[in-house]
Amino acid sequence: MARYAYVNGRYVPHGEGAVHIEDRGFQFADGVYEVIPIINDRMVDAGAHLDRLDRSLSELGISWPTNRRVFELVMAELIARNRVSEGLIYMQITRGVAPRDHKFPKGVPASIVMTTKRVPFLSQKKLSDGVKVITIPDIRWTRCDIKTISLLPNCMGKTAAAEAGAYEAWQVDREGLVTEGTSSNAWIVTADDKLLTRPASEDILRGVTRQTLMRIAEEEGLSYTEQAFSVEEAKTAREAFVSSATSFITPVVQIDDVQIGDGKPGPLSHRLQNWYLDYCAGQKQLA
Amino acid sequence: MARYAYVNGRYVPHGEGAVHIEDRGFQFADGVYEVIPIINDRMVDAGAHLDRLDRSLSELGISWPTNRRVFELVMAELIARNRVSEGLIYMQITRGVAPRDHKFPKGVPASIVMTTKRVPFLSQKKLSDGVKVITIPDIRWTRCDIKTISLLPNCMGKTAAAEAGAYEAWQVDREGLVTEGTSSNAWIVTADDKLLTRPASEDILRGVTRQTLMRIAEEEGLSYTEQAFSVEEAKTAREAFVSSATSFITPVVQIDDVQIGDGKPGPLSHRLQNWYLDYCAGQKQLA
Repeated sequence: MARYAYVNGRYVPHGEGAVHIEDRGFQFADGVYEVIPIINDRMVDAGAHLDRLDRSLSELGISWPTNRRVFELVMAELIARNRVSEGLIYMQITRGVAPRDHKFPKGVPASIVMTTKRVPFLSQKKLSDGVKVITIPDIRWTRCDIKTISLLPNCMGKTAAAEAGAYEAWQVDREGLVTEGTSSNAWIVTADDKLLTRPASEDILRGVTRQTLMRIAEEEGLSYTEQAFSVEEAKTAREAFVSSATSFITPVVQIDDVQIGDGKPGPLSHRLQNWYLDYCAGQKQLA
Repeated sequence: MARYAYVNGRYVPHGEGAVHIEDRGFQFADGVYEVIPIINDRMVDAGAHLDRLDRSLSELGISWPTNRRVFELVMAELIARNRVSEGLIYMQITRGVAPRDHKFPKGVPASIVMTTKRVPFLSQKKLSDGVKVITIPDIRWTRCDIKTISLLPNCMGKTAAAEAGAYEAWQVDREGLVTEGTSSNAWIVTADDKLLTRPASEDILRGVTRQTLMRIAEEEGLSYTEQAFSVEEAKTAREAFVSSATSFITPVVQIDDVQIGDGKPGPLSHRLQNWYLDYCAGQKQLA
C-alpha cells in the first residue's frame, strides 16, 4: 500500500512530498507542529492538540491556512487513506514561502504538511520495563511553551541521551531544577510521596498528556502538585516517569547513574500508566 | 534569464527548488547556513565564511556532504549561471532526509541548497543615512555562536524592529548588556571615545565582517576593545553602527527613542564604512 502525505492541498506519495527551498520552515524554523497518537482507530485528545496548535500559531502571528474544520477533515482523510489504526499523525504548519528575509512576510499563505506513521505503541517494551534518562543543561530559548519546529537543542539532547544508552534527557535550568525532557514532560514521586511536575510557564511545553494525566489524577482522587523539582530530588525520588503523546506514561528507572526506587517501574507510575492507556483505548471517559 | 538554485546535486530553476518534507532542516531546524556578499564580481571573505560553515557543521556533528573544493566550484558555477556581479550567495546545509526522530540519524548524506540573489548593495540609502534600531530582550538559546537555521527568535526580533519603523533590533541579555542584532553585530563609540563590540563567546555569532573590521582597524592604527556595553552606554554613545555581510557597516542614528550623536552617521562610522567598502570592492588588501 502506498503511504500518502498531505502537502499544501494535495495527497502525494510520501516519498514525493516536498516543499520549496524558500519555505520559511526550512530557512528559519518559522513554523509549529503537533503529533497526535492514534489508538484503536481513533485519535487521542485531538481537540486539545488542535487547541494548542491554534495557540502556537497565534503566538507567532501565523494565520490558519484553512479553517479548522477543513483541517480536521484532511487529518481524517489522511488517516483513512493510510489505514492507520495504531500510530500517529504529524502536522506541521509553517509561515509559507517567501523570498528569504528575516521579517515575517505579509499576505503569504501558510504551508501545511501532514504525515502519518504506523507505530505498535502499546507493545513497546519501554512501557513495561521503564527507561533511563540523563540530565543535561537546558540550552533552549525562553519560549518553550510554543510548540515550534525550532528543535535543534532538543535533537542534540535526545542524541546525547541515546549515546549514553538512555531514552530521554531531562533538561535542567540555571537553578538546578528540571524543566522537562526533550520531547516529554518530567514527573517524580518524591521521597515523602508527593507527585510533582513543573508548573506550566514559558519554560516548558504544556503537554497534552500532562494535562490529561492531571484530569485523571483528579478523578481518581490522587493529589499532585505543580512544583519544580531539583535533579537531587529526582535522584532520591521513589518513582519517576515521563509523559508525552507518543511515550504515554513511561516509567523512569534510572537517572544518570542513579537507580530510582528498586530499579523497576513504581506502583503509582504503573497505575497512572494503566489508567492513561485505558483512556487512550477509549475505555475510560473523563468528565 | 532563468534564475537557478542548486539543490542536492542539481541546478534547477529557482521556483522548482524543493526538499523532501522529512528533510531535517524543515522538521527540526537541524542545519546551518552562510551568506556571502558578491561585489564587483567577487565574493567577499569567502574563505572566512567557509571556515565558519565548517565550524558550524563540526559543532553539530554534520559531515560535509561533499568536499570543500567541490562545494566552492558549485558556488562559483551558480554565481556564473545567475550572472551575479553584485548581490549574494546563500548556502544551507542540513542533516539530510530521515524518518522523523529527534535523534540524529546515522549514515544519511547532508542536504545542500544554494541560491543567489542580485542586490544593489552599494546604492542602499541606509549606508549613507544610517538606521534606527530598537532594543529587545535576547530570548535565544545559549549557542548563538553556531550559525544555525534555527532563526525564529531572530525573525521575531527583526519583525518587531520593522513594526517600530526600525531596521534592526539589538538583543539585550539578563544583565542589560547588548549581545548583538538579529542579523548583525553591534558596535558603539562611547562618550569617552572608545570603539567597543562584545567579545566573541557562545552569546553571539563571530561575524566575518566583525572580524575583518578588526583587522582593518588594526592596520589603520585604530584601537578597539572587545567589551560588552549596556543599553544605557549605547544610548549615550557618540556613534553606533552594525556590521554584517549584507549590511556592511551601517551607521545607527537612533536607538529606541534616543538620537545618537547629532542624529547623523558619525565620522568614525563613516571612515570604517569607506575602508570596508574599499576592501569589498577589492581596492584594499589586508596583510
